[in-house]
Formats: sequence, C-alpha cells, structure tokens
Amino acid sequence: MNEIRIIEVKQSVFASNDKRANELRDLLKEKKTFLLNVMSSPGSGKTTTLSLIINRLKEKYRIGVMEADIDSDVDARTISKNTGVDAIQLHTGGMCHLDAGMTAQGLRALGDGMDLIFLENVGNLVCPAEYDTGAALDIVILSVPEGEDKPLKYPLVFRKCDLVIVSKTDAMPYFPFDLSRCEQNIRTRNQSAAVIPVSAKTGENMQALANWFTEKLKEF
Amino acid sequence: MNEIRIIEVKQSVFASNDKRANELRDLLKEKKTFLLNVMSSPGSGKTTTLSLIINRLKEKYRIGVMEADIDSDVDARTISKNTGVDAIQLHTGGMCHLDAGMTAQGLRALGDGMDLIFLENVGNLVCPAEYDTGAALDIVILSVPEGEDKPLKYPLVFRKCDLVIVSKTDAMPYFPFDLSRCEQNIRTRNQSAAVIPVSAKTGENMQALANWFTEKLKEF
Repeated sequence: MNEIRIIEVKQSVFASNDKRANELRDLLKEKKTFLLNVMSSPGSGKTTTLSLIINRLKEKYRIGVMEADIDSDVDARTISKNTGVDAIQLHTGGMCHLDAGMTAQGLRALGDGMDLIFLENVGNLVCPAEYDTGAALDIVILSVPEGEDKPLKYPLVFRKCDLVIVSKTDAMPYFPFDLSRCEQNIRTRNQSAAVIPVSAKTGENMQALANWFTEKLKEF
Repeated sequence: MNEIRIIEVKQSVFASNDKRANELRDLLKEKKTFLLNVMSSPGSGKTTTLSLIINRLKEKYRIGVMEADIDSDVDARTISKNTGVDAIQLHTGGMCHLDAGMTAQGLRALGDGMDLIFLENVGNLVCPAEYDTGAALDIVILSVPEGEDKPLKYPLVFRKCDLVIVSKTDAMPYFPFDLSRCEQNIRTRNQSAAVIPVSAKTGENMQALANWFTEKLKEF
C-alpha cells in the first residue's frame, strides 16, 4: 500500500475566510482544477461512495483526494487502497471544519495538474457548513440510517449544497426512512440541489452519480 | 400533544467555561439533580434510546429532558410524545455545541425538583466534546451503521466519556461492524468507560442500560 502523507493543517490567519475562499476558487478555475467539498455526518459512507465514483472516473480524469480528520489516517488509506489515486490526509488539530486556508495547504501538498479533487471534510453537519473552503461545488451525503429529518435539524448544510447524495439505500428495508419525505425535507431548505439516492452495496444509481460529476466537470 | 417550549440559548459570556461548568456541577449536586450529557453523531438514535430508558425509569424518578438543536423541535416533540416527561427544546442559534452557560439557561427553563435530567447535545462528535456542560457524567452513543472506526477518528469525545452506548445492534447483519473490534477501538481512547450495546428495535440490553443509570443515580 502507498505511504499515506499526513498534513497538519493550521487554521487560516486571514481575517476574512470568504475572501480567501473566493481567491482560491478563482485560482482553481484558472488551473482547471474542479474542487468538490463533501460534507456529512460521521459514518455516512463518504469514503466508500467516493471510492466507487472515483473508480468510474479515474481513467478519464486525473483525480486527487484530500481526507480531513481530527485524527487517524484511516480514510486516506482506504481511498488509496480502493482507487489507487493520489490521496492525502489532512489533520485539523482538533478543529471541527476546514477553512479556505487549510484547503489551500492541502492543495499545495497534493500538487498541480489535477482535473478533479474531492475534499472530504470533517464528519460533522454543523461547522463545515459555515466555512467556505473555496470549492466549486458543495455536496452533502445523508445516509438512510441517520433518518429523513436531518434537513430540518441541520438547515445550513442543506441550504448551501449543490447535491445531496442519499447513501445506503439498500438499508431502507431495515430503517423507517421515507425517501419522498426526505426529499420534501430537503426542499424546505433548498429548491435547486440535485438529489441522488445510491447504494454502494448494490451499485444502485452509481452510474447516474458518476454521470452527474462528468456533466458538472464539462460545465466547469 | 404537549406544547413544546423552545428556549433560544446564548453562548456563555464567562471567560472560563470550565469554571462555570464546575460551579453548575456543584449546584446540581447540592440540589440532588443528576445531569447527563448525551453526545453522538446526527441520527445515531439518541432520542429513541433515551425514550426507552426514560420509560423504564420514570415511575421511580422525576425526569426532565433538554433537547439541543440548531433548529426544529422534532426531538423535544418526540420525547414528550413517547414518554410524557417534561421536555424542552434548546436552540443554539447555529452553534455546534452547548456550553455550561447555555445548559444553565435550559435548566432554569426546565425548573427545579428533577432527580434526573438528560441533556441531548447537538448531533456532532467534535465540538460538544470540547465544552464541559456541567453534567455529572458524559455519554456517547455510537450507532452500528456509523462504523467501528469512529473512536479512532473522533478521539476526544470517546476519551472524556463515562459510557458508550452502541446503538442499533439489530442492524449488525446488514453492516460490516465487528463489536469486539469496536470495543478495542474504544479502549485505545478510554480504559474505564462502560460499553453497553443496545437495540431499540429488539429491546436488547435496554434493561441493562436502565440498571446502569439506576446504579449511577444511587452513587450520585
């Protein structure tokens, strides 16, 4: 297995994270690097879902992954093993989110020339929503076992996202989860986000999800 | 259904949250009110688990519940409907955790004379771990679908807790979750916390969990 690089990222000294995030977004646009910020609760299946998507896209695009965590390098190891693409682990030193400065530190470590970079934010539905990372698009993964009421309880993250991936749909028979009610709850926060239910276990809609990314990459 | 009171709590102005938390803990000890701080990811089954426990204890003790959330009153309504005990909803105004001052505001709204109060913290494994609420004990709920690696990724919350409830054990056949490995991961962070696996669906170990609370109440 590849040696996993671990980067200890420090919170930005910039007074305005929004300004730094906009500068980073402009720079990435110039470089034609499409950065996606993926947010979710702990254990929603971010790493597994990303692995499957990356395996469908990696022949066509040069892909990198930045895995943010408070501690451990579990996720970067998993992504690296599952996909073979360049993956680095960002340690936030206890911080509950990434900001644009921390993202920029990770991007420098990952190096230039990527078409597509997935930034897996700290597992947390609250704080990551409050800090613009400089990504082109924001994605939320909501897993079936968490329940369909999450958009009601964590409004901001659902309000600011461009795509909601409803993961672990294979678990639907075992949990009281109503997909249409979940979509209604998402719509109370966000009228325009795409909603794609997927299962890593059965492969349901994984191609549709890969197509969504391909479309967005073309528009970028 | 009871009218649910919603309290908009404000972050403490006290410079030292630890000092305020210790004062609150002393005050609650004098009043013989046993406050428990319950932390977990979003959707781990906090509200369901607490409802079942409360129904086993409510004949013997006067119980209250404070449900903290960024928005919505879903949890306070559910607890109130499921158990009939006094429940209030704390809105944190976007904050990712409760501090001791916010907890004190909730306690004032709930009123005196309680034997046992459950504080359901904001669904988040990161920030709530960093702020002492003044509770006598800290509890983490980790649900089977989240995965056994969470103690590796969220060290602080597992380090500081007195009890880990492993919830949704009925889902074990559908998820790659090894309970003994989960316990090993918990032990890397915490040698002394009790670990009790439960299922709200099958009722597994719910009586053992209720007994744990009864024991701790006697010791208090």
